[in-house]
Amino acid sequence: MTIGIIGATGYAGAELIRLLLGHPEAGNLILASGSHAGERIEDIYPALRGRLSSVLVSPAKAIAESDCVFAALPSGVSEQYAGAAVDRGISYIDLSADFRFDDDEAVYSAWYGKPYTRPELRERSVYGLPELNRLRIRELAARGPVIIGNPGCYPTGASLGCYPCLARGLAGEGPVIVDAASGITGGGRELSRSFHFPECADAMSPYKVGAHRHIPEISRNFSKMAGRPVQLVFTPHLAPMNRGILSTIYIPLGPLPQGLPSDRPPSPENAERAGEIRELYAGFYRDEPFVRVLPQGAAASTRGVRQSNYCDISVHLDQTGTTLIVVSAIDNMVKGAAGQAIQNMNIIFGFDESLGLGGIPAAF
Amino acid sequence: MTIGIIGATGYAGAELIRLLLGHPEAGNLILASGSHAGERIEDIYPALRGRLSSVLVSPAKAIAESDCVFAALPSGVSEQYAGAAVDRGISYIDLSADFRFDDDEAVYSAWYGKPYTRPELRERSVYGLPELNRLRIRELAARGPVIIGNPGCYPTGASLGCYPCLARGLAGEGPVIVDAASGITGGGRELSRSFHFPECADAMSPYKVGAHRHIPEISRNFSKMAGRPVQLVFTPHLAPMNRGILSTIYIPLGPLPQGLPSDRPPSPENAERAGEIRELYAGFYRDEPFVRVLPQGAAASTRGVRQSNYCDISVHLDQTGTTLIVVSAIDNMVKGAAGQAIQNMNIIFGFDESLGLGGIPAAF
Amino acid sequence: MTIGIIGATGYAGAELIRLLLGHPEAGNLILASGSHAGERIEDIYPALRGRLSSVLVSPAKAIAESDCVFAALPSGVSEQYAGAAVDRGISYIDLSADFRFDDDEAVYSAWYGKPYTRPELRERSVYGLPELNRLRIRELAARGPVIIGNPGCYPTGASLGCYPCLARGLAGEGPVIVDAASGITGGGRELSRSFHFPECADAMSPYKVGAHRHIPEISRNFSKMAGRPVQLVFTPHLAPMNRGILSTIYIPLGPLPQGLPSDRPPSPENAERAGEIRELYAGFYRDEPFVRVLPQGAAASTRGVRQSNYCDISVHLDQTGTTLIVVSAIDNMVKGAAGQAIQNMNIIFGFDESLGLGGIPAAF
Amino acid sequence: MTIGIIGATGYAGAELIRLLLGHPEAGNLILASGSHAGERIEDIYPALRGRLSSVLVSPAKAIAESDCVFAALPSGVSEQYAGAAVDRGISYIDLSADFRFDDDEAVYSAWYGKPYTRPELRERSVYGLPELNRLRIRELAARGPVIIGNPGCYPTGASLGCYPCLARGLAGEGPVIVDAASGITGGGRELSRSFHFPECADAMSPYKVGAHRHIPEISRNFSKMAGRPVQLVFTPHLAPMNRGILSTIYIPLGPLPQGLPSDRPPSPENAERAGEIRELYAGFYRDEPFVRVLPQGAAASTRGVRQSNYCDISVHLDQTGTTLIVVSAIDNMVKGAAGQAIQNMNIIFGFDESLGLGGIPAAF
Repeated sequence: MTIGIIGATGYAGAELIRLLLGHPEAGNLILASGSHAGERIEDIYPALRGRLSSVLVSPAKAIAESDCVFAALPSGVSEQYAGAAVDRGISYIDLSADFRFDDDEAVYSAWYGKPYTRPELRERSVYGLPELNRLRIRELAARGPVIIGNPGCYPTGASLGCYPCLARGLAGEGPVIVDAASGITGGGRELSRSFHFPECADAMSPYKVGAHRHIPEISRNFSKMAGRPVQLVFTPHLAPMNRGILSTIYIPLGPLPQGLPSDRPPSPENAERAGEIRELYAGFYRDEPFVRVLPQGAAASTRGVRQSNYCDISVHLDQTGTTLIVVSAIDNMVKGAAGQAIQNMNIIFGFDESLGLGGIPAAF
Repeated sequence: MTIGIIGATGYAGAELIRLLLGHPEAGNLILASGSHAGERIEDIYPALRGRLSSVLVSPAKAIAESDCVFAALPSGVSEQYAGAAVDRGISYIDLSADFRFDDDEAVYSAWYGKPYTRPELRERSVYGLPELNRLRIRELAARGPVIIGNPGCYPTGASLGCYPCLARGLAGEGPVIVDAASGITGGGRELSRSFHFPECADAMSPYKVGAHRHIPEISRNFSKMAGRPVQLVFTPHLAPMNRGILSTIYIPLGPLPQGLPSDRPPSPENAERAGEIRELYAGFYRDEPFVRVLPQGAAASTRGVRQSNYCDISVHLDQTGTTLIVVSAIDNMVKGAAGQAIQNMNIIFGFDESLGLGGIPAAF
Repeated sequence: MTIGIIGATGYAGAELIRLLLGHPEAGNLILASGSHAGERIEDIYPALRGRLSSVLVSPAKAIAESDCVFAALPSGVSEQYAGAAVDRGISYIDLSADFRFDDDEAVYSAWYGKPYTRPELRERSVYGLPELNRLRIRELAARGPVIIGNPGCYPTGASLGCYPCLARGLAGEGPVIVDAASGITGGGRELSRSFHFPECADAMSPYKVGAHRHIPEISRNFSKMAGRPVQLVFTPHLAPMNRGILSTIYIPLGPLPQGLPSDRPPSPENAERAGEIRELYAGFYRDEPFVRVLPQGAAASTRGVRQSNYCDISVHLDQTGTTLIVVSAIDNMVKGAAGQAIQNMNIIFGFDESLGLGGIPAAF
Repeated sequence: MTIGIIGATGYAGAELIRLLLGHPEAGNLILASGSHAGERIEDIYPALRGRLSSVLVSPAKAIAESDCVFAALPSGVSEQYAGAAVDRGISYIDLSADFRFDDDEAVYSAWYGKPYTRPELRERSVYGLPELNRLRIRELAARGPVIIGNPGCYPTGASLGCYPCLARGLAGEGPVIVDAASGITGGGRELSRSFHFPECADAMSPYKVGAHRHIPEISRNFSKMAGRPVQLVFTPHLAPMNRGILSTIYIPLGPLPQGLPSDRPPSPENAERAGEIRELYAGFYRDEPFVRVLPQGAAASTRGVRQSNYCDISVHLDQTGTTLIVVSAIDNMVKGAAGQAIQNMNIIFGFDESLGLGGIPAAF
């Protein structure tokens, strides 16, 4: 297969290259870039020297000559390329937000500031969280080219962390709170004061509190999973590391029983109840190749998933047993971006879903 | 003044030394250690070379020869030393948890696994969060030697972040959730797998979820501040940095009004309301020398307080305006330990509260 | 093939596991440990969860049941295991220093403080730097089981950086100086004050200046490459990163011509001469699968080889053109340990030398 | 005193502010910036909030209203400002390279690409390495306003590391090699691909090998110290840390005695000889307030000088005793920039040389 990557010079593009060079079905890569066309990829990523020295071409050329196209572009520009791909009869896997909201244009335009220019493309598009929409992806693929709205990095970690609990109706009244920390690659390759080493090293900072564009995407996933509207509070943070997203998620189970003091150590019943919920999670994800529910007592860490497509999940309770605390860890560039996109490609083409994604997490 | 430091070789001890060497009233330091007595401090901390080459003495000797004693010891051993200090008529500033719970021995023993051995000492002890108990510290000091239960690092950041909101009755039903990330110095100088560089660098991990010993301390502070029991959910994390604690705190303001969608961008009214609460915070802390309420739109970062005694606070609302999100940043070793202990010493002795604590945060 | 790993719980062991799980010929892994026998590897490396849950066995069992054995042990204990392996007729790839000195027991015992216990094993052993000894490895393998003395991390980077220049007789009078910085994994998994996060993060330090055990190994390689004794000065440093060794190597080309000022910017002739030496390097390594000589003007960085088996080399001259400055970058855990060990296995068994080692360096 | 800082928004400017706010004689700061005039400094450095909220003014205004001016500007623009300051009768402490070369305009213009525009200003200028030129600074100051050419960061560490050895004639034939690693603040506040977190974190890289502009400055210092031309080879590196420069310096003592093997462990005589040289260093620097010669066996680390004005030096020999290896550590922003500039101010005004520079290094 010949695979095109539009936006190949950004970090998600570079990660797609790294992973696809190890994918047995990816015979040939065509790299495209609006701003770097004509340059050699190895001059931008010296790590690739000796492995891939392609000259970057135009997006149009990549679409014209590929059997499948990935696009790692800023939100707001993918509709034209996706349309061109579908017109040529090939699938388009979009890592931007442009196809993540199906026909809910109102929510998309409220957060991204633009209307849909080709709303009819949503007939061929699907939100590409395989654990949620695997069947829908297959159905669409059976009928022709597919447009994948590949999930955002934070939404992937948050949604996988909550799916079993929301689907099984465990969540009580009140908002689900997602507190997440991301490595700096999440900010992309563009230079920015926030990502200048001396301004982010050795420090933790929140950003876009109560206003991050991933809010509607997570909220939408939660509501679908629960089958009812779920209120979300979300705060992203920058952590001084290259990769990874750790999401600590607070799900209300019910009010504190009257008279119960809330400042005592967890009781043995608490551990037992946590163990039951952990079992529910483990059962729910039993057949998922990339979700690992950790044994009780362990806590998910970005270290455990580094450079892999895994989402590790650990299940905890607060000391009173009234708040479920779920921790999920992903590599923001793999399961949170390029790896999940390839997982979607594997589904579209009927390959084993893990093909090319078998890398062991690097413990250090 | 001659000042004793028991447990001088640990990280909090080292930070006390660093700060006290710049304190105009600290004429002489006596360093003590149970396990390192007889060694030179400069052999343990080469940074001190040329500035302080004291030989470490026994705790008893430090108490016998000082005008005031700081103790940076593990919890569970301070009562004997505090008693000896009070018997000699000198104040004892304890950085462990042993004097943080006043006469609530039940809560202390439930979390720390030991009873009080000298409960009567609590008549002379006070929880040393100056913003909360400044007057009580002064009162006690007017009557004789004082034992300070110097607050824990997480409790300092969490409590200062919530005080105005709890004291003014803004918090609605449901738990207050504190999600906090600490630099690795929080784990102390003892070797441990968790703090071995390759196992914590470039990674984020939670620990002791729902079971950390700072839960009862934070909970107790919240309830005192609110004048009613406040339920707390608390999750600490390790971030790959040397210093700092960032606490992101979720305080329920009230239920989502019926019919209001929760996935829309924040409205202008939201920003206005956040601004009002920010004003309330700024007014509340107007006279506090070490609490800085940031302007609306800014977000607290550990970078802004590095190596200083400041607590920076920023105030936000979620997109629906129903959850207050407060972010507080402290240096865990300064306002979260040694700096606050010196602030307490300044209060006890009637010095300017900022004496020796005027260091500007290091921006990098 | 069934492959045994003795010392599987250390960092080099963990990296062998990570790489061998992706090696097409490694059908089965037997993990052994003296101190952790009976434990599950996934409890020590949670990253392995779901991929390998082997119970660790004794070294003897690993040797008895494998077709090839890797040993990642401290120096001084491999002779017994290597002997047992050879007696069983299987090859033994030793990551310690025990088989790096062939029959030069005097040098080994001077630095490692022990005599050989089974000197006769050196008849079957070879120093496993493939770029230097590939043919000798093949010859030995053709005659029976082989013992590989897998090179040290620093010696690999230093030796590959100097080989072309020494072999072609470019080096003039005076010592070759190797100044190298290693990531903290180089210190291993054992807890140590030096590797406690707050004591090494955000800092650079040299160690064992003029006294590191890799001195005789590098020195020996240099002398073999040059065909004459080469004097070496070597200083290792710890850099605050997980992986990688950057070696900056100073090779005297000749004295400064009389009357030439040494403080002027490099002349155009200088760049030309550097380009010629760069060509010599590129030609020398033309057929090496894992050595990349960078284009003139680029500088080798550990970033370019992260988690790969590559050694990147850049060639420079000082401003006077009288000192050759070569920079080499490797991942200390891959080309500097586990990857090179697998490369040796591939040579022994006649596999493609790159088998299982094709991972693209992670740019971030 | 009123003190002006031109270029106050850069990192050296910010560090001058941090240190001068703690300087007892710095009554008032006037901050100036060409590009940020009109902005508030606290909006650029939130760490300063509550301590300094000055509006940035023009450089001309700072010169017109100050008693002494610091300039932290790129090289090539200071002559006009220095001239204006001297015309007003005030001293000008320049952190750029413009006044580091006295009347050796040829070397300056060869490396910096510009001629002197006001060569006559060198009559009032002096290279501000206090350990070398303290008397000359005092002499000039006694006669009127002084222009300080404040040393570069690398030259400070390298020159202090070599001064005793060169002045006492220990260095033999051949170049002195300086291999140095700097924290990322050395690159300044301007955004750049090289300093984007994901491109420099967790990695080591050399840069400008054989071509860095500090070569002529170091070379010049060495030659002055030795009283004869000294050849220099210099390689700077970027290390993934905020602050600090570690310089490992190789000084040839003489040729290897014939017949002496160079690959044996250091002899006891070697340690003795190293101890003698260490004593020479300690004696040489006995009265220097900011140079600490470490005890034999210790090695200088950037950790030991973090955020202080110290230069720590350790003295070693290679295993043969023919190469002296000196390691020096400074904080690049303090002794390597702002701290040294203030030390120069203290000398000019006859203050205690340590005034405002007494901060203890932060051990973490």
